[in-house]
Amino acid sequence: MKRKIAILGATGSIGKSTLDLVERSPDRFEVVAVTAATNTEALADIARRTGAKLAVVADEARLPDLQSRLAGTSCRAAAGEPALIEAASAEAELVIAAIVGCAGLTPAMAAVEAGRTVALANKEALVTAGKLMTGAAARAGATLLPVDSEHNAIFQCLAGSRKEDVSRIILTASGGPFRTASAETINAATPAQAIAHPNWSMGEKISVDSATLMNKGLELIEAHYLFGLPSERIEIVIHPQSVIHSMVEFVDGSVLAQLGSPDMRIPIAYALAWPERLETPAQRLDLAAVGRLDFEEPDLERFPALRLAREALERSGAAPIVLNAANEVAVASFLEGAIRFADIARIVEEALQESDFVTPRSMGDVLEIDRNTRERVESLMKVRCD
Amino acid sequence: MKRKIAILGATGSIGKSTLDLVERSPDRFEVVAVTAATNTEALADIARRTGAKLAVVADEARLPDLQSRLAGTSCRAAAGEPALIEAASAEAELVIAAIVGCAGLTPAMAAVEAGRTVALANKEALVTAGKLMTGAAARAGATLLPVDSEHNAIFQCLAGSRKEDVSRIILTASGGPFRTASAETINAATPAQAIAHPNWSMGEKISVDSATLMNKGLELIEAHYLFGLPSERIEIVIHPQSVIHSMVEFVDGSVLAQLGSPDMRIPIAYALAWPERLETPAQRLDLAAVGRLDFEEPDLERFPALRLAREALERSGAAPIVLNAANEVAVASFLEGAIRFADIARIVEEALQESDFVTPRSMGDVLEIDRNTRERVESLMKVRCD
Repeated sequence: MKRKIAILGATGSIGKSTLDLVERSPDRFEVVAVTAATNTEALADIARRTGAKLAVVADEARLPDLQSRLAGTSCRAAAGEPALIEAASAEAELVIAAIVGCAGLTPAMAAVEAGRTVALANKEALVTAGKLMTGAAARAGATLLPVDSEHNAIFQCLAGSRKEDVSRIILTASGGPFRTASAETINAATPAQAIAHPNWSMGEKISVDSATLMNKGLELIEAHYLFGLPSERIEIVIHPQSVIHSMVEFVDGSVLAQLGSPDMRIPIAYALAWPERLETPAQRLDLAAVGRLDFEEPDLERFPALRLAREALERSGAAPIVLNAANEVAVASFLEGAIRFADIARIVEEALQESDFVTPRSMGDVLEIDRNTRERVESLMKVRCD
Repeated sequence: MKRKIAILGATGSIGKSTLDLVERSPDRFEVVAVTAATNTEALADIARRTGAKLAVVADEARLPDLQSRLAGTSCRAAAGEPALIEAASAEAELVIAAIVGCAGLTPAMAAVEAGRTVALANKEALVTAGKLMTGAAARAGATLLPVDSEHNAIFQCLAGSRKEDVSRIILTASGGPFRTASAETINAATPAQAIAHPNWSMGEKISVDSATLMNKGLELIEAHYLFGLPSERIEIVIHPQSVIHSMVEFVDGSVLAQLGSPDMRIPIAYALAWPERLETPAQRLDLAAVGRLDFEEPDLERFPALRLAREALERSGAAPIVLNAANEVAVASFLEGAIRFADIARIVEEALQESDFVTPRSMGDVLEIDRNTRERVESLMKVRCD
């Protein structure tokens, strides 16, 4: 029996890697639905190649274009959020939730509420709606499979173990491009310096998050919700080579680690085939060729974003939503050259200090807190810049 | 329900560590049988402390002494091989097979044939009788839990995975005290230099095996029988810090590794509690404090024992028995100052070349090939030294 899969965000980086793997194993997978934000040309091509039955473009204005591109196929074209929700929850057993940003929240939640196995590649989902999403997964019997290399590593290390036997989770962080830089250099960093990530090729926003270590802070929050461990039992260690993707320590003192080359097809393949495995063309790890792995404590003075993320996690409720939204606005502003690198953490800290947070009770609440925070931070920055 | 355990070799190093853990968790374990080679004083003390019902001394001449030491207790004293077999197979659900050397073979096999869960700490068992023992385990429904830190690491990495998803096993080796030494220095090494192991505190024989890398060669053979992978899918990487105890690579390119501080209580605890875990007082791993892990290819020129072990594995049949026996005689001779360090591998190679091997069909065959090899190597060395 082929496994029926839906790929939400099929034209993005995770979507492409997923398709690469699926097309190498046509006997194991059947793509039933694919979605994209706006790129109808690529989406129609994917739908034709995979024989998907449903192709959804989020932008409703592009539906006619998608329809004409799929003319003569048996693939139905659709658009808008209800159609995204249908793609996420209708036929697929496994949903690859790879829509970037807040646009991915509702479809991912729909897949979870439908009790599907959900390969979660959307970072915002767990950071902003972690409690809602894991609660819904427990009620609906959905399985969340993290695709992020760190959380996927932890998931792999936990396979076959009882939760009560876990003592700590240890997230590894590359330390980013400013790992060895002085506080002065970091504070004066330019966007070009900040997006030069040492190990992974990534988008600009996540590269800046990797430079501030906010990326690791967001992963800390995700790990909390995914694996149900309190903040004090989730540690972060700097590991510049990014060969060990993360670790789990057990009550007996044993530590299990997952290692690999920096190829997202490895965690995606794990999610696709779980609880089995799928062959990938990813380069095999050769530790003798790597030669050396280093580890050091993270420095919360030079990288205050990590401290802020932990504080937001410990406050919980709306704090992680505010942290995430404020950070996004600040990073965009930094990339535009409007603020300095060091201002990113300062703005996030201010956003977290000001708020009188209400705990979100629904995805609607989450999206509202997110929107309000963005507006508040935008005006905050306007005041600063004026 | 307490888990009933028998400790074969209770007065040795593995036995002592096992007792340390068992006595910390009196609610989880009940020691039903304990054995020792000769030390009746320590054995009687252990039997009294644990409330074991059966205490066996291998040396029959010491039975009266054991009996008098256990007078007034409800513990039965016994001696000799039939009593060792009884201890291994009668009442315990879990048998800790920690009798050193060939004396441990028959009791370990008895536990396997009785379908018990066997925590195997006897290296010779799998090297010399691997096929017989894993065959017997499959027939009797016995589970073999390796206690050796490397094989225990692999066992942990395999938990929750399918065998067909494994692509490689990667055994780590410290490289021993001569890792960076020149061939000339190694060939002229003294026993004192050879037994100075960098990471683990061990007996003299195994320390020399660690210096020649024969220890890793024997572990390669063990890994083959335990995990059913051919020689070409079991690799060895030198890792001087011995923090990663071994690894498993899967078909998707993922590598799982088990790490920990050098404390044998960690793998013993895993065997005791499997498939759950048991808290231990072992020091937690602090990678930031360790700082750095190194890896390099093993050098088969300077360390020919590793090549010989792989050849013996590939020839299989009696070859691993000959390798093991010849090595034991040669190491003893080296420790006595009768031969040079480089002669150890030479003698093993000669022993392997000379023989016209018959595949052993029983434990009796194994013990006979072992005995014949020892005699042959002894006379070989006499000729050399005369």
